[in-house]
Amino acid sequence: MDDIRPLIALKRDGGTLTAAQIEAFVRAAGRGTAPDVQLASMLMAIFTRGLDTRERTDYALAMMRSGDVLAWDHLDRPTVDKHSTGGVGDKVSLIWAPLMAAVGFAVPMISGRGLGHTGGTLDKLEAIPGFRTDLTAVEMDRVVQDVGCVITGQTADLVPADRTLYALRSQTATVPTLDHIAPSIMSKKLAEAAATLVLDVKVGSGAFMKDIDSARELGRVMIAIGEGAGRRIAALLTEMGRPLGRKVGNALEVQESLEVLRGGGPDDLRSLVIELAATALKAAGHAPVDLAGALDSGAAMRSFEAMVGAQGGDPSSLRDGGLRGEAGLQEDVVGAPLDGEVWGIDALEVGLACAALGGARGGDGAAPDPGVGVVLEVDVGAVVRRGDPCVRLIHRDGRGLADARAYARTALRIGPRGARRAASPLILERLGGAP
Amino acid sequence: MDDIRPLIALKRDGGTLTAAQIEAFVRAAGRGTAPDVQLASMLMAIFTRGLDTRERTDYALAMMRSGDVLAWDHLDRPTVDKHSTGGVGDKVSLIWAPLMAAVGFAVPMISGRGLGHTGGTLDKLEAIPGFRTDLTAVEMDRVVQDVGCVITGQTADLVPADRTLYALRSQTATVPTLDHIAPSIMSKKLAEAAATLVLDVKVGSGAFMKDIDSARELGRVMIAIGEGAGRRIAALLTEMGRPLGRKVGNALEVQESLEVLRGGGPDDLRSLVIELAATALKAAGHAPVDLAGALDSGAAMRSFEAMVGAQGGDPSSLRDGGLRGEAGLQEDVVGAPLDGEVWGIDALEVGLACAALGGARGGDGAAPDPGVGVVLEVDVGAVVRRGDPCVRLIHRDGRGLADARAYARTALRIGPRGARRAASPLILERLGGAP
Repeated sequence: MDDIRPLIALKRDGGTLTAAQIEAFVRAAGRGTAPDVQLASMLMAIFTRGLDTRERTDYALAMMRSGDVLAWDHLDRPTVDKHSTGGVGDKVSLIWAPLMAAVGFAVPMISGRGLGHTGGTLDKLEAIPGFRTDLTAVEMDRVVQDVGCVITGQTADLVPADRTLYALRSQTATVPTLDHIAPSIMSKKLAEAAATLVLDVKVGSGAFMKDIDSARELGRVMIAIGEGAGRRIAALLTEMGRPLGRKVGNALEVQESLEVLRGGGPDDLRSLVIELAATALKAAGHAPVDLAGALDSGAAMRSFEAMVGAQGGDPSSLRDGGLRGEAGLQEDVVGAPLDGEVWGIDALEVGLACAALGGARGGDGAAPDPGVGVVLEVDVGAVVRRGDPCVRLIHRDGRGLADARAYARTALRIGPRGARRAASPLILERLGGAP
Repeated sequence: MDDIRPLIALKRDGGTLTAAQIEAFVRAAGRGTAPDVQLASMLMAIFTRGLDTRERTDYALAMMRSGDVLAWDHLDRPTVDKHSTGGVGDKVSLIWAPLMAAVGFAVPMISGRGLGHTGGTLDKLEAIPGFRTDLTAVEMDRVVQDVGCVITGQTADLVPADRTLYALRSQTATVPTLDHIAPSIMSKKLAEAAATLVLDVKVGSGAFMKDIDSARELGRVMIAIGEGAGRRIAALLTEMGRPLGRKVGNALEVQESLEVLRGGGPDDLRSLVIELAATALKAAGHAPVDLAGALDSGAAMRSFEAMVGAQGGDPSSLRDGGLRGEAGLQEDVVGAPLDGEVWGIDALEVGLACAALGGARGGDGAAPDPGVGVVLEVDVGAVVRRGDPCVRLIHRDGRGLADARAYARTALRIGPRGARRAASPLILERLGGAP
């Protein structure tokens, strides 16, 4: 066994750890060669004493090196990836990855599952019958080469130290600090090894960061780590007080992604996809390209269909009604409780409504029902009369419907016409990104 | 299992724990109902964020309550105890306990074993053939009632939470803080339940506290805990830059204790015993008594002999040569390396010499050789000529002798005559104690 007590004592007393010392701690975590109680003590010492920018970068790099690191030197296209901190209705990756592939990039995206009220990209893609999210590194490489983009889950050989420490952080009350969160996120992205990374840091009730100051700090810390590790990186802080798009639920979000890939879809979702793609182009030092055109022409859609096929999914399922769980559903409508204007639609409450219907991953990791979810019939600013349909709840045999109705009613903020404060913009702030 | 993460998070964020919250943490440690990694994280959160006086008192009380708490209400004498933070040649307890018994107190003393270069009272007493230091609570009670004093080891039922946390602190690099050390010491003393406690906080090379400021802080923190728990308590900060008395080693220290109990012995040892006894009397609100007389009259010696007999020891062994390990020893003399005056005798180096000879408890807990040790033939201030015997090393078949000679030579600081700085007094400072 390794004895990391000298390193713990150094951080405990407010010292700064060298790259070699951080490497020794992380390696012991990854290989299981230090007692768990020593790792726990170190996690708390880091939590209370903090890390500087250089230490955070070394922490992320050490976790990256604890397992396999992907390599893309053999590709003839520049690599790019996106990471979202998670929100309600956030299906951007399903559109952004094929869009970037359509304009000439390679997108080796490793994504995650839903957590609490937020959805997960892998859960959404698995609403497509046959779609595999457990590709090996070799399979992932082949899909990227053949299609230009891939979206799959983390392999067992990637960042094992982060997996150990992630579980231990939750056990030891050391989760809520950027000193652990940012290196943890970035270690996975660094191991994935895209040359350019764009971050979508969500802000608001439906996001992990509830206010812009903490979101800005997370964005800045992740950018510093990425730059320290030699990557091109930029971030957008984006609005998550309201849901993104109008559909929340795994199959519903695939449907809405297909709407955008066919040149339609809700304005906010299409705008954000294009903004994040433009940000990636700029960060990569690439000249602007016609991103809207790549959506409208069907080029992005063709990349998406090719990716679905390459990952074992059934492309014919992308027609209406062919997704998993779409059969045998019922609908229930929540109407406006009074005449007025939609002042707001709360993202957290919509997420909770979807979860109540069975559309989220349970606390025990149980798979969500891919078919159920929430469809918003109105946007913020819409004028409504009492009883007008505002929210449609897509449920299965009434499961969770009473709770979902209560959440949906709470989500809907109706106020007097004309007195509404302007909604906050979709893009709140831009960080980094000068190539 | 208990989930103490909310408590960890509170301390992690710099909060103050209520008595009930500290109790929940300590109870989980004592019963083993929280995961070790949570206890480890809490230990580090306490280390880095600190505890206030009230929290430290509640911490000590909670550890006390994790096991049996002794009770002495049935005695017709006031109870009193002493705790030393440990030093080289510190055999005070062997004299102080029977002295306090001789002047009318009950002394239910639970003592410890040696650690590193410092000796332990139990190890010393076990140089007396047959002497038992593993009394049950019932046996302990009987000896106190019959004799007036008892010195025994901690029972398994006393402060189990402290035992768990003590082991974990060493594993997690959370040892060196008063926030853990002082409640740990005090929990044992509170469970022992003497009404009055006197602390001997050692300062100097041979002590855990190397400087007076840290010793004073430890003394103050322990006094605050004791007062918070409703005890009468006082502390002396005493010199441990040089050894106490002239003999170091388990049987040797019993011999020297007997010298003092017979009215003789080295001045510094006799003075300190009397000072600590007078401090206890004052703290207990008791009128002064003739402590020197109780030593000179043989009253204290009779208490000691009665205690030895009551704890299974052979009183006849107290005559010269009857202690364990005293047969088959050899002697080696370290002489003065030059003409001059003894400027100092370093306590740490003397302790290391004794340990080298096999006289200390090994890192693996192996029992010490009771016979070996170090005898000082000179005091600080003595005038010596080159070759004069200064230190006698009592060894067994030369074991560790070369190292011990090197330590002994280093311990001995000989300088020019007349240029010596005055030695620091034995009693450096007095804290607390107003009844």
